Amino acid sequence: MGQTHGLHIAVVGATGAVGQQMIKTLENRKFPISKISLLSSPRSAGSKVIFNGEEVIVQEAKPESFEGVDIALFSAGGSVSKQLAPEAAKRGAIVIDNTSAFRMDPNVPLVVPEVNEDDLHQHNGIIANPNCSTIQMVVALEPVRQKYGLKKVIVSTYQAVSGSGAAAVEELYEQTRAIINNEPFEPKLLPVKSDKKHYQIAFNAIPQIDTFQDNGFTYEEMKMINETKKIMHLPELQVAATCVRLPVATGHSESVYIEVENSGLTAEELKAILKEAPGITLQDDPDNQIYPMPADCVGKNDVFVGRIRQDLDETNGFHLWVVSDNLLKGAAWNSVQIAESLIKLGLVKEVK
Amino acid sequence: MGQTHGLHIAVVGATGAVGQQMIKTLENRKFPISKISLLSSPRSAGSKVIFNGEEVIVQEAKPESFEGVDIALFSAGGSVSKQLAPEAAKRGAIVIDNTSAFRMDPNVPLVVPEVNEDDLHQHNGIIANPNCSTIQMVVALEPVRQKYGLKKVIVSTYQAVSGSGAAAVEELYEQTRAIINNEPFEPKLLPVKSDKKHYQIAFNAIPQIDTFQDNGFTYEEMKMINETKKIMHLPELQVAATCVRLPVATGHSESVYIEVENSGLTAEELKAILKEAPGITLQDDPDNQIYPMPADCVGKNDVFVGRIRQDLDETNGFHLWVVSDNLLKGAAWNSVQIAESLIKLGLVKEVK
Repeated sequence: MGQTHGLHIAVVGATGAVGQQMIKTLENRKFPISKISLLSSPRSAGSKVIFNGEEVIVQEAKPESFEGVDIALFSAGGSVSKQLAPEAAKRGAIVIDNTSAFRMDPNVPLVVPEVNEDDLHQHNGIIANPNCSTIQMVVALEPVRQKYGLKKVIVSTYQAVSGSGAAAVEELYEQTRAIINNEPFEPKLLPVKSDKKHYQIAFNAIPQIDTFQDNGFTYEEMKMINETKKIMHLPELQVAATCVRLPVATGHSESVYIEVENSGLTAEELKAILKEAPGITLQDDPDNQIYPMPADCVGKNDVFVGRIRQDLDETNGFHLWVVSDNLLKGAAWNSVQIAESLIKLGLVKEVK
Repeated sequence: MGQTHGLHIAVVGATGAVGQQMIKTLENRKFPISKISLLSSPRSAGSKVIFNGEEVIVQEAKPESFEGVDIALFSAGGSVSKQLAPEAAKRGAIVIDNTSAFRMDPNVPLVVPEVNEDDLHQHNGIIANPNCSTIQMVVALEPVRQKYGLKKVIVSTYQAVSGSGAAAVEELYEQTRAIINNEPFEPKLLPVKSDKKHYQIAFNAIPQIDTFQDNGFTYEEMKMINETKKIMHLPELQVAATCVRLPVATGHSESVYIEVENSGLTAEELKAILKEAPGITLQDDPDNQIYPMPADCVGKNDVFVGRIRQDLDETNGFHLWVVSDNLLKGAAWNSVQIAESLIKLGLVKEVK
């Protein structure tokens, strides 16, 4: 707004849970912005959002909205991205898309800057931001892979409801209030709004995130499996996932078992590797009960890793506990970080 | 009490979360009881408990309390068991101990009736009831082992706070109420009352259950590892566990990955095996969003298994989601079930 130099940034889905975090993250990072366009569905258009101290009116997202835009951050659902991301790209914007619409498209780089920033060079106007639970895991795995190779990954997730949007967080709190006040309630949203049945999330754990595929895995689980292979450039990596929704508002946790290719790694060295790795805060001190927890990660950009220990049977096997704010590193921060990488790599037109 | 035939049963820890469930389970099963002695610490002695419609006054547990007792169900903490279980056994009672005090003692059978009921023949006055999270897992694993052998188990748990006792459930509800009312609170109990630090459990996940061992695993994790090998008579079985406490009052869930010894098993056959297995309710119908959840298992004796699917890389690998009421099959019901097995096997003196 006030700035005369910088990029023209659009945020699509500006009123959603992730969109709001994108706007906050752009502010916090003092991202070089000359103009910001906050876009949304017709329903939310007209809302007012404060950005860098000035009021911005949210506009309906249309193909023409992207004229002159340098970078468009999309987080308004897959169908909006499918329709409008190509329109934005056609008009010269670089799209950073937070939905699953283009993630497995071979022409679209799927990027976590700590892991495969160089893939940005291959972009054709659209860059995909991976699934939240995938991002935090690959940040923790990549430094190990670099030194010891990676053979197998088995992950069980403990995912927060904000991954399903702001309404799901409301549902969690409303159900919780109803249960502790002994009042009736009716689940309406979780595990998947569009699916047939809805279940209680308060004081419960739901082993379904996204819809089921024919192989018995959920779509969320297949996202973790396929996206991990693509981001890490390891098509042969063995990956399995079980994804579970918890009564936690924000902060995904993951119990990760890995087997590395090369022998010789110890738990102590693994801790040392992760302590030095980008984007990671090591929280691993059992004697002082230091380990990552979702309640501690909220509002922070890093991926937190702890509970690191060698498997008792498989010397190349290790267990880790990985926690991150799913709205930040899992979504908004990774998207803005990609935008920062585009500037750093000279892939976006120079700051005017 | 009213009955002139049956056994003299003692419940030690009668006012605790598990003790209360033991009393209820004895009632529900119409267990043949001629006399019941409800015992506790001096602090809780004098409380009144209704059993089979009659008021019973809780007495302080002392060595002499076990004179004439046929079966003594202990659930009053490891130190009480260490002190009083041998006293009860010396007086001719068969002790079924729900604490970890004697579980790994080679002279004490560690029993889950669906798995190793025959081990009861080897008892020397004391029988150990396994850890709650171990019990539900081995019930699900044993039928698979019988037909295909078992090589490897990797489990991540999603455990309810009632595993830490009734006060922990109170702490969960009090913290929850404070958070949704925006009031301050101070964690005092979880993850481990006697440990240095206490953390928020409401809307959080704590990757610590019981204290840490030198190898980086918690004692709860080592219980799952060692008890599974002992119960299943598989000292060479590869087992790894990550145990996590959730904001769930009752009902433990487990994400279990297994590798079987012999090839040829399919997910469909695994479902068929578990459907016919004792103590298991199969809940596995992804098309209709049928899978086990802690909120559904409360008050039921069975182990619920679902989300069964073959690993995408390892043909002998399978994933399961296992849920059970940790106070029932995980504690009170398994203990009473052992008592029923003792009668069935003629190991307790005949019903008078």
